[in-house]
Amino acid sequence: MKIVIVGATGTIGSAVVSALESKHELVKVGKTKGDVNLDITDVDSIRSALQQIGSFDALIVASGDLAFNSLSEMSAQEWNVGINSKLMGQINLAREALEYLTPGGSITLTSGILSKDPIAGGVAATTINGALEHFVKAAATEMPKGIRINVVSPTVLEESLPMYGDFFPGFIPVPGKTVAQAYVRSTLGVASGETFVVE
Amino acid sequence: MKIVIVGATGTIGSAVVSALESKHELVKVGKTKGDVNLDITDVDSIRSALQQIGSFDALIVASGDLAFNSLSEMSAQEWNVGINSKLMGQINLAREALEYLTPGGSITLTSGILSKDPIAGGVAATTINGALEHFVKAAATEMPKGIRINVVSPTVLEESLPMYGDFFPGFIPVPGKTVAQAYVRSTLGVASGETFVVE
Repeated sequence: MKIVIVGATGTIGSAVVSALESKHELVKVGKTKGDVNLDITDVDSIRSALQQIGSFDALIVASGDLAFNSLSEMSAQEWNVGINSKLMGQINLAREALEYLTPGGSITLTSGILSKDPIAGGVAATTINGALEHFVKAAATEMPKGIRINVVSPTVLEESLPMYGDFFPGFIPVPGKTVAQAYVRSTLGVASGETFVVE
Repeated sequence: MKIVIVGATGTIGSAVVSALESKHELVKVGKTKGDVNLDITDVDSIRSALQQIGSFDALIVASGDLAFNSLSEMSAQEWNVGINSKLMGQINLAREALEYLTPGGSITLTSGILSKDPIAGGVAATTINGALEHFVKAAATEMPKGIRINVVSPTVLEESLPMYGDFFPGFIPVPGKTVAQAYVRSTLGVASGETFVVE
C-alpha cells in the first residue's frame, strides 16, 4: 500500500512511520523535511504536493498547529492558528486527497485528548479537536469511491513529556508506538467516521 | 434578572423571549432589529453593543450563520461563514460578555443537532456545532465570578419546517416553546460546560 504521511518527522508521525514502513511504501511529507514538502495552511501548496505524489492508497495527517492561552487572553490571531492549521489544514488536505486516493482508500486525521479533557490554556485545543472529531463523522457520509475517514485522538505521548508534561497534570502518557497502532487500525481496518481515542 | 438575548427576533430567539419576558427584564439584540444592534462577526460591534447595555445577569445567543454545501464543493469563503459567524461570533460574544456579567451569571450559546446527526450538505454545521459543544466544556473551567456557560443543541423546530424541513428527513421536529425551555434551564439552573440536546 502506498501511504502518504503528513508530519512524518514529528513525534507521532515518526512512530507511525516505524509501525508501517516494513510492509508499505511510505511517502513522508513535512513542511521542510521529508520526500515532499507542503504547508498545510496553504491550499495551493497542498495541491502542488499531492500532484507531485500522484495516486496513493491512504493519507495519514499528524500535523497541525494550535495556540495555547486562556480564553480571556487568546487573541484573534491565536485562534486563527488552530483554525487555519490544525482544523482547516487537515480538512483541506482530506478534501484535496480525494482526487488522488484509490478506491477503498482511507484518510486518518489527528485531534487530541483535550477534546475530551480540558486543561488550563487549552480552550482552542478542546474546540478545534472537537471540531475535527465531528468533521470526520459528517465527512464519512460523503466519501466517494468507498474511501473511509477517521481521526485519532491521542493523549500526551511519553516522548513528549519533557516538553509538554507539565501541561497535562495526572494524565497517564502513552508510548508513541501505542498511538501509532490507532493510525494502523484506522488505515488498514474498516471503520469510518470514528474517533480512535488513545489514552 | 436582566437577560441579554442576541438573535431575539429569530425563530429560536422569539420563543426564548416568550418564555422569559413575564418574569425578567430582557434586552433584545439583533443585527438590525431589537433594542440594541450588533454584528456578531465584528468584535468592535460586539464591544460597542455591550458597552451600551452595561451590566447584566445572563447572556443568551441564538444567532450565527453557517453555509450548507457538500465537502467537495464547499469553498473557503463558505467555511468562513460558519467559522466567523456561528463559531467565533458566539465565542467572542461569550468572552466580551464576561466583563459585563454579574457574579453568578450565565452564558448560553446555540449549536444544533447536526453535531450529533449529519445531514447531506451539513459538514460545516456538524463541524462548527461540535466545536461549540467542546468550547463550552473548556470555557466552563475558566469562567470568572462563578459564571456558568452552556450550549443548547436543538433539532429542527416545528416553526422552521416550511423552510428547512426537507433537509431533515425523518427528524421529529420540536416546538419552539420546548426548545426555549433548554435556554431557561441553562440560564436559571446550575449546570456549566454542558450541551442541552433538545430533540
